[in-house]
Amino acid sequence: MNSIEDSIRLFKEQLEKIRAYGHAMGIMYYDMETVMPPAAAELVGDTLGLLSEAEYRLQTDESFLSAMNEILLHPDEVDEITLCEAKRTNEERERIACIPVDEYVQAQIDQTAAFNAWQKAKLNNDFASFLPHLEKLIETTKRFALYYKPDAPVYDTLLDQYEKGLTTETADRFFLQVRSALVPLIEAIQKNGYQPDTSFLDQPYPLDKQRELTRYLMQVMRMDPERTACGEVEHPFTTDFTKNDVRITTHYYENAMQSSMYSVIHEAGHATYELNIADEIARSPLGTGVSMGVHESQSRFYENIIGRSEPFIESIFPKLKELFPAQLEGVTPHMFYLAVNKAEPSLIRTEADELTYALHVMVRYELEKKLFDGSLKACDLPEAWNKLYREYLGVEVPDDTHGVLQDSHWSGGSFGYFPSYAIGSAYGAQLLAKMEQELDIWAFVKEGNLQPIMDWLTERIYRYGCRLDPKDLMEQAFGAPFDPSYYTKYLTAKFSGLYHLS
Amino acid sequence: MNSIEDSIRLFKEQLEKIRAYGHAMGIMYYDMETVMPPAAAELVGDTLGLLSEAEYRLQTDESFLSAMNEILLHPDEVDEITLCEAKRTNEERERIACIPVDEYVQAQIDQTAAFNAWQKAKLNNDFASFLPHLEKLIETTKRFALYYKPDAPVYDTLLDQYEKGLTTETADRFFLQVRSALVPLIEAIQKNGYQPDTSFLDQPYPLDKQRELTRYLMQVMRMDPERTACGEVEHPFTTDFTKNDVRITTHYYENAMQSSMYSVIHEAGHATYELNIADEIARSPLGTGVSMGVHESQSRFYENIIGRSEPFIESIFPKLKELFPAQLEGVTPHMFYLAVNKAEPSLIRTEADELTYALHVMVRYELEKKLFDGSLKACDLPEAWNKLYREYLGVEVPDDTHGVLQDSHWSGGSFGYFPSYAIGSAYGAQLLAKMEQELDIWAFVKEGNLQPIMDWLTERIYRYGCRLDPKDLMEQAFGAPFDPSYYTKYLTAKFSGLYHLS
Repeated sequence: MNSIEDSIRLFKEQLEKIRAYGHAMGIMYYDMETVMPPAAAELVGDTLGLLSEAEYRLQTDESFLSAMNEILLHPDEVDEITLCEAKRTNEERERIACIPVDEYVQAQIDQTAAFNAWQKAKLNNDFASFLPHLEKLIETTKRFALYYKPDAPVYDTLLDQYEKGLTTETADRFFLQVRSALVPLIEAIQKNGYQPDTSFLDQPYPLDKQRELTRYLMQVMRMDPERTACGEVEHPFTTDFTKNDVRITTHYYENAMQSSMYSVIHEAGHATYELNIADEIARSPLGTGVSMGVHESQSRFYENIIGRSEPFIESIFPKLKELFPAQLEGVTPHMFYLAVNKAEPSLIRTEADELTYALHVMVRYELEKKLFDGSLKACDLPEAWNKLYREYLGVEVPDDTHGVLQDSHWSGGSFGYFPSYAIGSAYGAQLLAKMEQELDIWAFVKEGNLQPIMDWLTERIYRYGCRLDPKDLMEQAFGAPFDPSYYTKYLTAKFSGLYHLS
Repeated sequence: MNSIEDSIRLFKEQLEKIRAYGHAMGIMYYDMETVMPPAAAELVGDTLGLLSEAEYRLQTDESFLSAMNEILLHPDEVDEITLCEAKRTNEERERIACIPVDEYVQAQIDQTAAFNAWQKAKLNNDFASFLPHLEKLIETTKRFALYYKPDAPVYDTLLDQYEKGLTTETADRFFLQVRSALVPLIEAIQKNGYQPDTSFLDQPYPLDKQRELTRYLMQVMRMDPERTACGEVEHPFTTDFTKNDVRITTHYYENAMQSSMYSVIHEAGHATYELNIADEIARSPLGTGVSMGVHESQSRFYENIIGRSEPFIESIFPKLKELFPAQLEGVTPHMFYLAVNKAEPSLIRTEADELTYALHVMVRYELEKKLFDGSLKACDLPEAWNKLYREYLGVEVPDDTHGVLQDSHWSGGSFGYFPSYAIGSAYGAQLLAKMEQELDIWAFVKEGNLQPIMDWLTERIYRYGCRLDPKDLMEQAFGAPFDPSYYTKYLTAKFSGLYHLS
């Protein structure tokens, strides 16, 4: 008979081993996206398969399970962090323990192959070559969701994975509300006919100066150089291995400096969350962002609410002028503010403006729902994609590279992730409203000092890591239930102002 | 009772698992040297410790051992590759199985800490902060060598690890022979007083153009872009994870383009070896270079014998002129050839010319011998280092950053590696002599076609991987025993010509 101390010790030792495997695989994924030469994909898939098998066995090990159960059965005898670790770890265990190990391993191998196939397919505008991989991923995702919750609708299980508690019903309601507010606003802008001058953005901005801008923005975003790095990739993302190693990535386009500029601020927003988790849980499974919705609330808060605000642009404008004197000759901060907020239906989600962005998400949400209720086949995705872009955004998709192949998420088996972007944007607007009551935020932003804002968010969100469920965490931060009308009101006010709508 | 087929299957499955751990740890080491932010060092050390423990257990597992023994006991019933795999794997197992697992794991953790401490120490010219790490590494290296071969001199055991069969006695004789030839040659050059014009190298060469030169040189070196990558680091190295993922690295200095140019050719030489291993052993433990001596024979062959030859410079000169028209105005290939072969005693091994290079190696060899026979303490290394640089090269070491802290090897626990550089250089000269008998190599080099040379070396060396011992491999390639006089004759002829010595 083990004492509770023995159980805790065994539990923590095993957690540390599981952490090590996650760390190694995470570094391999990072490497795959940043440096790995293409021919190594198969080898990497096999290695990830074998490591994930070892990790699976650690997570589903009997002695680990019984130690965890001991902790869960004696909540009064363990500290709060350990108890919370046991709860989260057990949730994660339940999600995977229902999958036979060989299927679990095969899924890792398939995912690596799919990601690499997608990269090539996008490059060559060749959906057909990606299709078999996609079909397999969808089939596996469906099967695993049903192993876990045989009686729940598959897409609900998927949504819950990225934003605990989110269901199709809630998401439908949310998107309906957002769409009802956005569509008339976008129509009014198009009818109105005015568009800001963006010609100064359509010039070559030297890459080495853009890299210097990244370094500057990382400072503005208070990214500690001892704990962070920035890589260059085709599709920017952020990854973290504890708060001591948080990496953002970006992509430079010579003729679109705003692309890298805002991707850096977006990714630095993700990083800020991870960098400010409490030290006491830094190495624990609790030591990371709680959900993709909350994560995107931060990245999109800094990118759009802060980064695309006039005070922020005023604060960084001297640096922009210093780096790009010729390109920005005669340009004022106000002109730059108007240009980077130009609202116009477009093809690419990651380059979309703040207003039309949610429509891009809705396209993906509608398609995912249908993929998982069986009413849409993967082979019909390009046609369905193009149709919805026509319907929601009024744009014609010229090819799959600029259509259904544009995002990496599906190739990594992430189905149900996209709604987080819109939910996160809405979280951000409600956080702003609360923050404005307590903090003179625009005065800080104008002087280029984001620290008080980050401190406010650290106190209410970042430091908790996964200790609270996303719903509880956000309600605590809002001091009220989640209310998407903050988001629609925020967008209406901002874009009515920008486009002189009455 | 298992059949031999069962043993082979079990053996191969376990080899694949061991490969996966080696792969993951290799990627983590690569990441540590290229992107990891400094604060993550401890975390990475712990993860590497846990993975190395798992790898150790796989390598020393009883059922694995008995499967391997079955294979070794029935050489007639297994194919030659499997038999060879069993021999090599058993050698490696014997080297580590004598080390208690906790000491083995701790050594991995200590090594990561030492590497990161050395990076800081070198940056801050602070040997004292590195000393405790170095002392621990030396102590551990000594202890492990004695576990493995309790009755052999420690330094012999270390030499053998990097170049199987090499002993202090052989190395002493080799270095004596080399030194006897080099010292009078270097003295004659210094007495003679002539030095080539190198002023055109002392100019700013834009980094983006240097990066373009790297891409060009990688093409010249036939590096398949599907299977290779080039990263930027402080201390260039090459790493490989099968022949499908071979990565070189370099460092750019604006005012020393030749530094990156020759480091790229050197590292591409290592890569060429790995890229041309036979497919049938690509994933096997046999699928990598057999020893550091043979590896350095290739890197230094391409860097110096080919890369610093006049025909090679003639072949790449149009590209150099295209990239650096202002810097190379009025410069001829012959002037460039003279400049990059300027022989002059200096402080930094990796920047040393081909002639004085071996003296840098000898300094390290003499110090390592003394560290491991107990006649030199780690704390006295800086003084001993500076003394030998004065004695062998006639230069005054200004600080430890340019002295004892310059190389990364010791910080990674690599003691006994350095002699490989000199032995490898000598191998290269003897290979050249043999190749010249069979191939009109300089005609190929002059037209920028290195393929026939690589084919010749693939046939005789690369394809074998670790299937032959280095001694047998090289003797087979030479068609004769190893003879260092090829090296001394080669250097004498080349530098007598360059410096107009009679």
